[in-house]
Amino acid sequence: MFKIIHQCNDCKTRTGIMKLAHGEVETPVFMPVGTNGTVKTFLPYELSDMDNQIILSNAYHLYLRPGMDVIANAGGLHKFAAWDRNILTDSGGFQLFSLSKLTKIVPDGVYFQSHIDGSRHFLSPEDVVDVQRTIGSDIMMVLDHCTESNIKYEKAVKALETTTSWAKRSREYFLHNCDTDRQKQFGIVQGNMYKDLRKRSAEEIVDIGFDGYAIGGLSVGETKEQFLDILAFVTDYIPQDKPRYLMGVGTPLDLFYAVEQGIDMMDCVFPTRVARNALALTSQGRFNLRNERFVKDLSPLDPECDCYICRTFSKSFIRHMFKAKEITACRMLSYHNIYFMKHLMSRIRASIADGSFLSLKSEYEGIYKE
Amino acid sequence: MFKIIHQCNDCKTRTGIMKLAHGEVETPVFMPVGTNGTVKTFLPYELSDMDNQIILSNAYHLYLRPGMDVIANAGGLHKFAAWDRNILTDSGGFQLFSLSKLTKIVPDGVYFQSHIDGSRHFLSPEDVVDVQRTIGSDIMMVLDHCTESNIKYEKAVKALETTTSWAKRSREYFLHNCDTDRQKQFGIVQGNMYKDLRKRSAEEIVDIGFDGYAIGGLSVGETKEQFLDILAFVTDYIPQDKPRYLMGVGTPLDLFYAVEQGIDMMDCVFPTRVARNALALTSQGRFNLRNERFVKDLSPLDPECDCYICRTFSKSFIRHMFKAKEITACRMLSYHNIYFMKHLMSRIRASIADGSFLSLKSEYEGIYKE
Repeated sequence: MFKIIHQCNDCKTRTGIMKLAHGEVETPVFMPVGTNGTVKTFLPYELSDMDNQIILSNAYHLYLRPGMDVIANAGGLHKFAAWDRNILTDSGGFQLFSLSKLTKIVPDGVYFQSHIDGSRHFLSPEDVVDVQRTIGSDIMMVLDHCTESNIKYEKAVKALETTTSWAKRSREYFLHNCDTDRQKQFGIVQGNMYKDLRKRSAEEIVDIGFDGYAIGGLSVGETKEQFLDILAFVTDYIPQDKPRYLMGVGTPLDLFYAVEQGIDMMDCVFPTRVARNALALTSQGRFNLRNERFVKDLSPLDPECDCYICRTFSKSFIRHMFKAKEITACRMLSYHNIYFMKHLMSRIRASIADGSFLSLKSEYEGIYKE
Repeated sequence: MFKIIHQCNDCKTRTGIMKLAHGEVETPVFMPVGTNGTVKTFLPYELSDMDNQIILSNAYHLYLRPGMDVIANAGGLHKFAAWDRNILTDSGGFQLFSLSKLTKIVPDGVYFQSHIDGSRHFLSPEDVVDVQRTIGSDIMMVLDHCTESNIKYEKAVKALETTTSWAKRSREYFLHNCDTDRQKQFGIVQGNMYKDLRKRSAEEIVDIGFDGYAIGGLSVGETKEQFLDILAFVTDYIPQDKPRYLMGVGTPLDLFYAVEQGIDMMDCVFPTRVARNALALTSQGRFNLRNERFVKDLSPLDPECDCYICRTFSKSFIRHMFKAKEITACRMLSYHNIYFMKHLMSRIRASIADGSFLSLKSEYEGIYKE
């Protein structure tokens, strides 16, 4: 399912190809986030036209709304959302501990209250596999116990042990109940900011044996130094021959930091969320279109970008759209930002293949400060 | 500039072609409204792909934001908004009396306060020509004194006289200061709900001599009976050989009522505004996607529609998009509704040509109640 195409000899960077039920995915890959089945402001043909080979959706959100009966009725999320490329679904582990209310963990699963309507629910690790089977996820994630950064050691041990126990049950249930040719399942490594726990979690999860491994519980409030330190540490405990997925990351610079540690997959709402706040990501850095200095700027967002928005509109006009609170403004900048991330990841893949990764990285460290 | 292609022998319906600076416009035409230079949720290629030959923008809005210096800097609205078909701009007459505050009319023009930031402004009829010259409108409207429905006779007379006086000045200024090959100018008939005043206003405005004539002050709060009565009455006083434009109208049924009275042009925010409230316009009538009965409905919005949305998504999915408050929901339904109006107007033109207009009208009277 995963083939490494180019492995750097003296570093951890690599390119590869994942073969999934809805086509191949070139890695490293940045997955746009379509929480409710659609990337915000997009229609699916736009994502296909940019050659996005995989998007992320959220099992937690889809389970609550529209509900599994609606998605089953449509024949799964691909048909429902008219998206014929791959879908990875997050298990809801992160959402259960960030969005929902009155979350209570018991050995058998999670009690929680919907953030939408306050309704009460219970999900076991097996339920979460079932949800993602109904969704038809090309890659499903196991239910994990995600924690805030820098909790006490004892709490981190407990979350790790819950995560391992649920991972075992999830894998067993998956192998007996899902079509393992059509769907793949990834485990999630936890362990908070403690290296010994990260190592233990990685070993326990790898020991269960998944189709790929994710690093959870990063980018949840820790310092940048902690983030980079744990990331560099934990990737050494994940097998070379499996895809490695860093969840919920990141910014343009984060792509470089992650890829440098041998990460193959990332996702983040960042490019679309900041777009709705008028923040453009470009080869010249990031800037906010609301800034007065763009009022008569007839140049495109990014002179090096050949997306429809950059070929068609000036900063002056896009700024006007934001000032006039036009929905079209969010569309324009979301489109450009996703295009930019896609294009940046293509350049990163090419740089790994031709050995220029570090020079591209330092170019972007000069352009982006965070 | 305007050529009638088909004139019904025993009724007022007709088809025609307007030749404007940015291409031909087949009439009768429904003009989508792009208040700030963009039809809400749309990018311009989508409007071109549907073969929209003309859109409406608002001089009042563009004058206040982004301001004429920004539009002049971009070389006019066509370049600014990347729209290479025709643009008609409303003069702001309607907005000055509905949106802005502290509006005070003096013989020379209008004092008003911006509805955006409270800033104070003055516009004369000549200023309004200048604004639309800067915008580069293919059709510009004269500044008129728009009034609420059913005001007292004396007030209606005064508004009519102001409208005529301003129209004379606007025309004179236009003829001396604008490129009359590239830009056209329409007069506006007022007169409130008084037939004698409507007749007088039409005669005075026609006497000045414009490239086309608009009927203003309708669809501003009067009853449907008044609307139809005045519409039928006033169109008889507008020359056959000039385009007739009914401002701010309308719904699917209104298209039939207007065309039946020999109207050639209409505009309204209706299809996009209701789209943002989940209301679909279809060949089966209108319905709200939020309705529970669509939760598992896998059929398209309109089985007779071949737009991208109807070819791609089910009511069930579009409903989910609205329930999840996705911007994509507004995009989907705005796109379909504009496509529907465009397609309906094509059918109306074809029905005029083949004599089946009245049967198409009664079909739609059966489907739409308002």
